[in-house]
Amino acid sequence: MGLIDQMRAGDRRALARLVTIVENGGDDGRRALAKLYQYTGQAHIIGVTGPPGAGKSTLVNEIALELRRRDASVGILAVDPTSPFTGGAILGDRIRMQPLGHDRSIFVRSMASRGQLGGIARATGDVVKVLDAAGFNAIIVETIGAGQAEVEIAREAHTTVVVEVPGLGDDVQAIKAGILEIADVFVVNKADREDAQKTQRHLQAMLQLGGVPREQWDVPIVMTVATRGEGVAQAVDAIQSHLQHLKAGGYFGERERQRVEREFRMILQGLALGLVQERVGAAQREAMVAQIQTRRIDPYTAAERMLAEALGVGEAR
Amino acid sequence: MGLIDQMRAGDRRALARLVTIVENGGDDGRRALAKLYQYTGQAHIIGVTGPPGAGKSTLVNEIALELRRRDASVGILAVDPTSPFTGGAILGDRIRMQPLGHDRSIFVRSMASRGQLGGIARATGDVVKVLDAAGFNAIIVETIGAGQAEVEIAREAHTTVVVEVPGLGDDVQAIKAGILEIADVFVVNKADREDAQKTQRHLQAMLQLGGVPREQWDVPIVMTVATRGEGVAQAVDAIQSHLQHLKAGGYFGERERQRVEREFRMILQGLALGLVQERVGAAQREAMVAQIQTRRIDPYTAAERMLAEALGVGEAR
Repeated sequence: MGLIDQMRAGDRRALARLVTIVENGGDDGRRALAKLYQYTGQAHIIGVTGPPGAGKSTLVNEIALELRRRDASVGILAVDPTSPFTGGAILGDRIRMQPLGHDRSIFVRSMASRGQLGGIARATGDVVKVLDAAGFNAIIVETIGAGQAEVEIAREAHTTVVVEVPGLGDDVQAIKAGILEIADVFVVNKADREDAQKTQRHLQAMLQLGGVPREQWDVPIVMTVATRGEGVAQAVDAIQSHLQHLKAGGYFGERERQRVEREFRMILQGLALGLVQERVGAAQREAMVAQIQTRRIDPYTAAERMLAEALGVGEAR
Repeated sequence: MGLIDQMRAGDRRALARLVTIVENGGDDGRRALAKLYQYTGQAHIIGVTGPPGAGKSTLVNEIALELRRRDASVGILAVDPTSPFTGGAILGDRIRMQPLGHDRSIFVRSMASRGQLGGIARATGDVVKVLDAAGFNAIIVETIGAGQAEVEIAREAHTTVVVEVPGLGDDVQAIKAGILEIADVFVVNKADREDAQKTQRHLQAMLQLGGVPREQWDVPIVMTVATRGEGVAQAVDAIQSHLQHLKAGGYFGERERQRVEREFRMILQGLALGLVQERVGAAQREAMVAQIQTRRIDPYTAAERMLAEALGVGEAR
């Protein structure tokens, strides 16, 4: 029995090994993904993002437990795009996740960015596919912040939950402008703080300013105190309602089409580059780079020439 | 006289037009970049990053004015990777930059991410090239935060300045772990706040924990009160010393080689994808995407087949 079959039969070690293979990328990863792809497309992919200190890990724990109470199995992927080199920050948070480890229907994995452009989004999408093929009903992808990487990750999610906390100053409003457009559900966590109502009103005002709801969905604002489990059921209600809305409104298929198209383009691009590089050879590539560095040729002309040579075309474009 | 010649002769409208052409990308942008590439490689590229509210815009203003006092011309690029869709947040800050507008040796431009993977890093690198070819001695690229996009942008800079402020709680330490590895100069701004010394000591401790300095460079920590211009001369001293260190130690050439290699690979990849897509045609691509979406084929096998067909090879890899 192969690894994929073992994983689908519920073997956790096979799952963990496949995640590692896929995360590492390369030919092995691609082969595994090609094989397990047929089993994907079943899970509800939920993105959870927000600033450091918003209590995301605790909230994700509680959401996972609530989903379990509703008989869903849950995969959690904690992604830290802010630590591209060492990649450690979020791992500390994971220690708090340990209690979940006893439940065999919950699987938790941390990932750090590899410092590669688009690398984290690629790897996250791939690991989500493994969890999807493994049969988890819901997959929660947790990320910090509101940068480009988070937005890319949000694009892969069906439902994106943005976590805010009371007491963030005006300074942070700048970031919210970007986050508004990826949020399907807002959660104001630590809602027992005194200015929680103010944060709620502020978010409401921002949503109203945003105009016509995207995909006809009115973004709900849920107040939670994750440390005490308060409001978590409402948050899960909102998350599940959103998925139903996407499906009922016909938006789900269109999102999937766009996602597949993007992903296919990325894969094609990687393969095409690999082919060109292989045909040209390392020595010639290095010589070309040296010429570009000394400004004897510009990189655009150099790339066209290399492409023409590798693919045996008179004019590359 | 072409646009590039006009720009190099000091024509500001030609410069602004070229920036727009290059920012928009496409064939026109690539052609312009190919032509002006020979004039690049002269400027000192300085990245400035830090959390919202750290006073980066004011600091960048003051650094620019100090560089002017030292007879350098300065290009400023304010990049906002946190607003990938609307892209407005940092623009408000730019209003404060207006006073610089009277000095013809300072050029200021704001950019927002286009929501495309790697789009902001690509566009930033391209606009930096235009400013470099225009003859600016120093180019300051200002970004918010510490996400993947900022790290990508930092990679393009010769010297990366990370701005911190006193009074950030422990919550933000997570982000600092990533930022430590891109910082060439730390600036503690708003250093008149009471816990400024504590922030300084904290950074010092982090740097010591970091072990052997990268490229044999001891990262300095400069205290500033940008609103009063205090410490700005010392910050500029540190920035200029870093460049001298890179050049004297032979690190500059190696950084440039890596940068050129990365850039060349990106360009090659884009061209290769374009060629494959052109040869296959839109109809067939859409049919393939539909098959992937319904899981009749996996995207990896689909990409290999499409590549084989487009490039007329028996086996694509």
